[in-house]
Amino acid sequence: MVDNNWLDAIKWDEKGLIPAIAQAKDGRVLMVAWMNEEALTLTVQEGRAIYWSRSRQKLWRKGEESGNVQVLKEIRIDCDQDVILLEVEQKGGIACHTGRHNCFFKRLVDGKWEEVDPILQDPETIYTKK
Amino acid sequence: MVDNNWLDAIKWDEKGLIPAIAQAKDGRVLMVAWMNEEALTLTVQEGRAIYWSRSRQKLWRKGEESGNVQVLKEIRIDCDQDVILLEVEQKGGIACHTGRHNCFFKRLVDGKWEEVDPILQDPETIYTKK
Repeated sequence: MVDNNWLDAIKWDEKGLIPAIAQAKDGRVLMVAWMNEEALTLTVQEGRAIYWSRSRQKLWRKGEESGNVQVLKEIRIDCDQDVILLEVEQKGGIACHTGRHNCFFKRLVDGKWEEVDPILQDPETIYTKK
Repeated sequence: MVDNNWLDAIKWDEKGLIPAIAQAKDGRVLMVAWMNEEALTLTVQEGRAIYWSRSRQKLWRKGEESGNVQVLKEIRIDCDQDVILLEVEQKGGIACHTGRHNCFFKRLVDGKWEEVDPILQDPETIYTKK
């Protein structure tokens, strides 16, 4: 029998979700997505990042279509127990659906959002595996 | 006149908030807090992290009591434009109210949250400057 007490510590929001930051070992923040209890439980059980897609209202096994799986290395929680921090190994080196290494590729420069990181793979070719 | 078009790009949640990750230059994630439009505008104007405290329902100039100000170095937004990533210089080297370097000091180890990072300063002594 699995001891799930660690789940009881978590402060889910009013929708039963918690934000999860995925970070690479080199420190770069890859993305932020949301988890419900099932997604977080499965993330730990399967050793890969599994989120709850708010737009699709279903579990989202990151990489299920692209192959760009996030292998779980470590999982942390913050002092308020309302944010998860995952250390992951990003397969394919691409976390963002735009084909970039990570989702934070727009930087505020002189009052404008500038795209400062390159597209590594044409997004048209990322999702052809399904 | 200040051009605030960059604010129009942001997808605020139903409460008018956006989560903001504060990250140190060495890559360590310090904390996550929330911003409303005023907090984000002031963060950019004043060059320091200013959040919206959901518990106190007021602006929270990080470090206003402790002196542990977060000096803004860079601000990014993700592809969905619903998460902010700040690069900051953490004054005092302590971001967490528990007296630790950052708020993500609990790691999931064998089904339990373990405190894996040290307290650097007794929290009793952090908030005596007010």
